[in-house]
Amino acid sequence: MVHQATVTAPVNIAVVKYWGKRDTKLHLPTNSSLSVTLDQDYLCSTTTARADAAFKKEDGSPEDRDRLWLNGNEETIAGNGRFERCISEMRALRTKYEQTKPDATKLADLPLRIASHNSFPTAAGLASSASGYAALTAALAALYELNTFLPSSPAPAHLPIPALSKLARQGSGSACRSLMGGFVAWDMGAHADGRDSAARQIADEAHWPDMHAIICVASAAKKAVSSTAGMQATVATSPLHAARCGVPAPGAPVAAYASGRGLVDGPGGTMAQMQDAIRRKDFDTFAEVAMAESNQFHAVALDTRPPIRYMNDTSWNIVSAITAYNTLVAQRTRGQRKYAAAYTFDAGPNAVVYALQSDVREIIELLLALFPFAEGAAHDARTGMQAGERPFEDRLGVFGEEGWAGQAGVPEGWSEGVGPFEPGEVKRLIHTKVGPGPRVYEGFGRTDEARAVLGADGYPKKL
Amino acid sequence: MVHQATVTAPVNIAVVKYWGKRDTKLHLPTNSSLSVTLDQDYLCSTTTARADAAFKKEDGSPEDRDRLWLNGNEETIAGNGRFERCISEMRALRTKYEQTKPDATKLADLPLRIASHNSFPTAAGLASSASGYAALTAALAALYELNTFLPSSPAPAHLPIPALSKLARQGSGSACRSLMGGFVAWDMGAHADGRDSAARQIADEAHWPDMHAIICVASAAKKAVSSTAGMQATVATSPLHAARCGVPAPGAPVAAYASGRGLVDGPGGTMAQMQDAIRRKDFDTFAEVAMAESNQFHAVALDTRPPIRYMNDTSWNIVSAITAYNTLVAQRTRGQRKYAAAYTFDAGPNAVVYALQSDVREIIELLLALFPFAEGAAHDARTGMQAGERPFEDRLGVFGEEGWAGQAGVPEGWSEGVGPFEPGEVKRLIHTKVGPGPRVYEGFGRTDEARAVLGADGYPKKL
Repeated sequence: MVHQATVTAPVNIAVVKYWGKRDTKLHLPTNSSLSVTLDQDYLCSTTTARADAAFKKEDGSPEDRDRLWLNGNEETIAGNGRFERCISEMRALRTKYEQTKPDATKLADLPLRIASHNSFPTAAGLASSASGYAALTAALAALYELNTFLPSSPAPAHLPIPALSKLARQGSGSACRSLMGGFVAWDMGAHADGRDSAARQIADEAHWPDMHAIICVASAAKKAVSSTAGMQATVATSPLHAARCGVPAPGAPVAAYASGRGLVDGPGGTMAQMQDAIRRKDFDTFAEVAMAESNQFHAVALDTRPPIRYMNDTSWNIVSAITAYNTLVAQRTRGQRKYAAAYTFDAGPNAVVYALQSDVREIIELLLALFPFAEGAAHDARTGMQAGERPFEDRLGVFGEEGWAGQAGVPEGWSEGVGPFEPGEVKRLIHTKVGPGPRVYEGFGRTDEARAVLGADGYPKKL
Repeated sequence: MVHQATVTAPVNIAVVKYWGKRDTKLHLPTNSSLSVTLDQDYLCSTTTARADAAFKKEDGSPEDRDRLWLNGNEETIAGNGRFERCISEMRALRTKYEQTKPDATKLADLPLRIASHNSFPTAAGLASSASGYAALTAALAALYELNTFLPSSPAPAHLPIPALSKLARQGSGSACRSLMGGFVAWDMGAHADGRDSAARQIADEAHWPDMHAIICVASAAKKAVSSTAGMQATVATSPLHAARCGVPAPGAPVAAYASGRGLVDGPGGTMAQMQDAIRRKDFDTFAEVAMAESNQFHAVALDTRPPIRYMNDTSWNIVSAITAYNTLVAQRTRGQRKYAAAYTFDAGPNAVVYALQSDVREIIELLLALFPFAEGAAHDARTGMQAGERPFEDRLGVFGEEGWAGQAGVPEGWSEGVGPFEPGEVKRLIHTKVGPGPRVYEGFGRTDEARAVLGADGYPKKL
């Protein structure tokens, strides 16, 4: 019998930003964060994990180590603290289980092979590490059937989410938020051992289903300063980050970081405002806080010594466009609505624009008018576009049954002076919406050979 | 006898940034600031003010109002609070003087004509309003001979600086710092009436004469958000600006802003660090604080709702170049020096790079290598270049007697990966150094027809 699990995990895009660790080993953050989980039908990481005594080395002798491939390229597990820690902690849990239940299948001692595949470009500010580590954690949990003994999973074949979120966090902080659908908080917690620093679902994807997202791919190049290095430089040197977190100065002792303080976690802070906005489905507040959080994150990056910068001129053109659009919406509704679109930027130049379903078509047409694609833009490995795919595909049918036929235009009353910008500044628009948490395709007794990204030969499939 | 005064006033470039007023009428700042006064041989505002009973209107009847021209274009004084206030306060002082001394020449009731000319492009982030209002204030003070009765002028024919700085401040906040040479603080003060919010010289231009400045003109377009509007939006909405100023929240009451608090004026804040660095001629600290202050100013602009942005991709390329250069300097001096160049950006994309004389040639050659001028770049009204002038002129003779012959190059050990950038990103380099305060060419009994920018006909000269 093959012991194999295959899961997909979604991307999440934060609207209250995670930037900074108070403990770099345990990945304990300096402030809480909150994100929207995006539909994984289009953007996701797929991971297959297999434990197999029959794995062979290239020379035909029995395999004696774990192996892992990302998008077909083998990664070294030994020496990569994150992969190593995640795998060894999951294996330790399985070992403990097998010791408790002598009739359990002996999986813990078998070599592992893991293949993971992203449906979008890696390390371009699209939170690939979040979905990737969430998928890795979920795949191992399904393979080892951790639901049977971790305390937080009531139903069989369900992943024990709160326990897993603490493990996923140690791979990549924001990965814990990709373990649930809808709107997910990552509470910073108070304890030094991190036991209360976990993901918590604010509302599931059915709560506010008309929350849509438009990803504007400005550049898919790898970023200059990694998030991991950048955020710790900010913690160590930025007085404004200290103020954001409510600690007296940069480099404050770990114990100085606490819930209940600062601009995010303090009374009336952005976490409280955002949770309340989501529960009430108040888009105006959601948008105001999301944009302020994005800007404040980039502000503390800029306040770092030396400064860190992820937004480029194209990013700022998108900010100008959305700001002008919101001004127009406020005018035509005579102030009944303040915002119909909310931009947010992670550690890269790409924007994600949140909007309600009823406004999405107008916003997409506006973005297509202001940011024309470059002539002949099509298949492009850097933007993740497949052969035959166009820079915008009407996947969610906002342009009706015929699909998108090139429509683009500014709304009535649009002020001159903002755009149109040079063709090619935005390379691709991806329209998606809020979605559910990870899906288990193989594991808990099921198989799905088509979904698996690790082939029967023990090597990643060519995708 | 013609009653006329002509003065020049220098540009100043802040190294501790002024951004925000706690009183918009009196121009009282939310924090103290500190600047370097640049040599006015090249960059300056020249202003001529004349009081004359013989001025005629275009129809030949006697003139009954004050008139003012900036760079040859007439400005409306009535309705421009700043011009109006500056002129009326100076005239009120003269009136008072004439009432006290009945033998004084009656100037206060005569119509005024004022012409002002900048030697560089206006409103492009080169602090033209600072030198302009400083020159206006100084010219009126010289015309009205305010030195004879304002308390702070010991010598005849010297401007009464502390008193004037409170008047200049009301034209443009940073103008008060252009009334003195060398290194000048503008103390925020504590009183609601602004009587202690004045300029103060930290050290004159002879204290640290090898302090040089290289202005990198990235764009001379007018800025999108004026400083006046931008800074008050920041005060009203930015939590990070509140933290910078040590007040509890954006929009805090005026009385909440006080010396002794916040990241600038608080204990160990940037004002104290910078004053100390200047007194000790400690370039490492000067550079570190100057760059941190520039970045923090742009960070609080970014934290504004909606965000304000002055630095563009070219500005950031300059940041990358200077950061890499400083890393190289630290390496080759084995950490004896941390910085040999310090960038700062005002409310625009242009950089000013401070450096010591001994490093200036290497830095200029580096900038010329990384930021090649566009082909054929020469006379350009937007950058203030005159016909026949090249984008870089070796005004201070760093390339020896032959002058600059196109030398450009990176220092030994320069890391690949930063630049060279596209030709034309930097349009012009201006090399200058620390300089003295305003110069009075006409007034106090002297005349200098060649320097005057107002002609004998009562209209601005064509320059």
